[in-house]
Amino acid sequence: MTTTRPAPAPAAAKDRRSVVPPPQRVGPAQTTPNTEDGQAPDKRDPYDLLIIGAGPAGLAAARDAAAAGMRVALIEVHHIGGNCLHEGCIPSKTMLRSAQLLADGRNAPINSGDTPAEVNVDFAAVMERMRRVRDRIQRVDSAVRLDAEGIDLHVGRARFVSADAVAVDGTRLRFRRALIATGSRPVMPDIEGLAAVGFLTNESVFELTRLPPSLLVIGGGPLGCELAQAFARFGSRTIICHNEPLFLPREERDAAQMVSHALARDGVEIHLNCNIVAVRLEGGRKHVTMVTDGNESTTVVDEILTGIGRLPAVQGLDLEKAGVAYDAETGIQVDDFLRTRNPRIFAAGDVCMEHAYTNTAEASAHIVVRNALFRGRQRLSALTVPWCTYTDPQVAHVGLYVRQARAQGIPVKTYTVPMHDVVRAITDGQEEGFVKIHVREGTDRILGATIVSSCAGEMINNISLAMVAGLGLRRLARVIHAYPTQGEAVRQAAQACVQSLDAGVRATRSSSQS
Amino acid sequence: MTTTRPAPAPAAAKDRRSVVPPPQRVGPAQTTPNTEDGQAPDKRDPYDLLIIGAGPAGLAAARDAAAAGMRVALIEVHHIGGNCLHEGCIPSKTMLRSAQLLADGRNAPINSGDTPAEVNVDFAAVMERMRRVRDRIQRVDSAVRLDAEGIDLHVGRARFVSADAVAVDGTRLRFRRALIATGSRPVMPDIEGLAAVGFLTNESVFELTRLPPSLLVIGGGPLGCELAQAFARFGSRTIICHNEPLFLPREERDAAQMVSHALARDGVEIHLNCNIVAVRLEGGRKHVTMVTDGNESTTVVDEILTGIGRLPAVQGLDLEKAGVAYDAETGIQVDDFLRTRNPRIFAAGDVCMEHAYTNTAEASAHIVVRNALFRGRQRLSALTVPWCTYTDPQVAHVGLYVRQARAQGIPVKTYTVPMHDVVRAITDGQEEGFVKIHVREGTDRILGATIVSSCAGEMINNISLAMVAGLGLRRLARVIHAYPTQGEAVRQAAQACVQSLDAGVRATRSSSQS
Repeated sequence: MTTTRPAPAPAAAKDRRSVVPPPQRVGPAQTTPNTEDGQAPDKRDPYDLLIIGAGPAGLAAARDAAAAGMRVALIEVHHIGGNCLHEGCIPSKTMLRSAQLLADGRNAPINSGDTPAEVNVDFAAVMERMRRVRDRIQRVDSAVRLDAEGIDLHVGRARFVSADAVAVDGTRLRFRRALIATGSRPVMPDIEGLAAVGFLTNESVFELTRLPPSLLVIGGGPLGCELAQAFARFGSRTIICHNEPLFLPREERDAAQMVSHALARDGVEIHLNCNIVAVRLEGGRKHVTMVTDGNESTTVVDEILTGIGRLPAVQGLDLEKAGVAYDAETGIQVDDFLRTRNPRIFAAGDVCMEHAYTNTAEASAHIVVRNALFRGRQRLSALTVPWCTYTDPQVAHVGLYVRQARAQGIPVKTYTVPMHDVVRAITDGQEEGFVKIHVREGTDRILGATIVSSCAGEMINNISLAMVAGLGLRRLARVIHAYPTQGEAVRQAAQACVQSLDAGVRATRSSSQS
Repeated sequence: MTTTRPAPAPAAAKDRRSVVPPPQRVGPAQTTPNTEDGQAPDKRDPYDLLIIGAGPAGLAAARDAAAAGMRVALIEVHHIGGNCLHEGCIPSKTMLRSAQLLADGRNAPINSGDTPAEVNVDFAAVMERMRRVRDRIQRVDSAVRLDAEGIDLHVGRARFVSADAVAVDGTRLRFRRALIATGSRPVMPDIEGLAAVGFLTNESVFELTRLPPSLLVIGGGPLGCELAQAFARFGSRTIICHNEPLFLPREERDAAQMVSHALARDGVEIHLNCNIVAVRLEGGRKHVTMVTDGNESTTVVDEILTGIGRLPAVQGLDLEKAGVAYDAETGIQVDDFLRTRNPRIFAAGDVCMEHAYTNTAEASAHIVVRNALFRGRQRLSALTVPWCTYTDPQVAHVGLYVRQARAQGIPVKTYTVPMHDVVRAITDGQEEGFVKIHVREGTDRILGATIVSSCAGEMINNISLAMVAGLGLRRLARVIHAYPTQGEAVRQAAQACVQSLDAGVRATRSSSQS
């Protein structure tokens, strides 16, 4: 392997012995004399791949590279597993599951007899279970296990000291290739008085042990909607404020509308087109002033949760010293091969991508390993990425939205199957939602799909597979699905496309005969 | 369209007018003079397709043919929708959903706090909901709707009167092609005294309005296991007897074992290797004598449910008059194109197939329409059919079992991912089960798969799609799945295959270099 441009000779380059000194892992800074940049000299060969950040992207890359026999350093300042494990998907989905069971139990009179409509919640037990689950999943990525996989874990804050070296708590580590996978951090809303009265973020909310009697959720994106519904189900008086006319701004309007209905049904107080202008503490409670369509009002709550988005974690890395270009809002600048301005250095995951998803973070990390270490030419833009908001019902999407297809000048035709036409959804009492598949008009080629259903996340996987494999709806319509499953909705939508195309063919034939 | 062999000229052949007399549907037998075979003469053109049985196969064929502009007769003696709708999947899955919610509610202390462990069941409400759901789904296939779709519905018992005609309650209907789709009926176990004391079948069990305090289920196939678990969850003291060493005889042993554990956990009393030898009524209750591994014992129950299998419904059709060969056990004899011995007559669904599934019944009906009416050459053996037993956890399968692959001399390698290694299964507390994918050894070609999981039915659809499209596990491993979903287990199994294949390649390379 060669670098694409000569890197400045590292300070310890002349001492390129392969064995001595022993690898320096997770420990205090060495007391060996410092080099001219103030770091302890690195007497070993440079790492084949040095990774900053042990979240989903960093871990995936470390494992790929180590499995291929590369020498890998993984640097983490906080805890292994990243946001997803500690303050993201894992704790939130675990809580959502409890909330779902609770809601199912309350609706049980419809389903299973005279179960009392009021099911009590032991919120502390819910949170205790969440932490148990998190601890358990955490063990998969323990330091011991990483070590066994041949990955050198360094605990500390990494800063670039040159184009081919970083410093971690006083130790200088050189690299042939580096990956920046520092992820993202929650955006703090700029609201007068908010910082002073205190608020919960996606990080601190999972440390709660007592259910807040009332909760204001700021922001109606995926996180805000998921948690607002869960807290309402647990019994908090829950209010959600969103500064746009509908939740989930990225999703299709009918999907977002269904989530809005679902939240309302669960008792969430919904404020759309609403901005919080000020917060103050009075009598130990939080008085929130909001403006909705020009009207100012005040509400009083016990806790405030902000979920207005995330920003790439680019601070404190001394990226300038490595020649890596970045922007505070959009993160590290990468090309379609995930290369930064420094051809030795790549980025993956939230720190450089528009969408902060665990699955894309991992996928981008796999691309980096191939492109950085194995002369790959894999493109980020070639990925087909499904995502899902785990409200009840769930909203899942893959591929293009209609608006995106239109913007690209692609004529779109959409085939929709409402879930109330799907046998399994009816038997399960989960009839809310639809499967919508967008195709290039006049063809069966899938452009994208949106699914709203109680198992949309599972169902979208089928469409992603078809898209990745280039299978059209004619093919999908012929796939026998297990009966009865909610996934049959996908086949039904495909069937509708086939019937429409065939009818078109017949119409064309008969008109050409007339 | 021409027939492949000349049929005997029907009595009314000379009267082949296209309009007069008006179609004779659902009504009393005509009073017009009878022909020599005792039937009212049919003065209209023969039907393009005459279908006996309006279950899933008959309905699917009728719709396919009518949509293609064919003249279609659909004959049903009982009710439209067949066993699946009335006494099969629909009512059972609706009941199972109630039982699932109940079980979830009871386990809620783990998940959502101090919910009382004893959740009461209003069994009458459960059954009432089931009948509501069934009525609702039934409306899709109403006589009015079929009429609007251009299908002539005839209500009555059909008997063949010749190679190209049937009689329905005294009316003779001629056909160019016919489809026998009469389905199957439950097998009655031959047990001394059983008929005298009375018992429930998959038909009568759904008419219950009171929960039996105790219930003996005879037979541990899919139906027996599903209903035993449901009744135990509703609160019946439930006993299941199965005459083999493990439930679900067709499924892989570890899958069947998991179902056995699950039933036991739900409080079902399990008797394997057990035969019921006699039943008698005493004091209004049913005394059942069973022999388990040579030991005789007696148990007393309130109700007995038999679910020992189904037999093809071939009686009373006068198949001999049409030259259609059949067997009382295996049903109508068909070739791989679903043709009977009479080349005008086809069969589809339970009446001719090894496995009684709604999805295969429909798929076989589509094949028949293409082969019978459009000179198709589609083969039944080319179908990839997934199936699922909806116990909790569910057991789903598609493709070959290991034993089948071995019998065909195909070397098999299996990749297994236990659900307790799947993030979403852990967060949802649904860790029981596994995804097992069988490939031809040394390749990534999928031979078959078994999934045990709380959403195995949904997950198997993904593998079926891959198999139908001829996608290998390398391709599947690269499909980004929605995160976190239980379906990721499929990708994880695919990933294990890729790693194993790549390790094999490396090993081969290094050994060839040494």
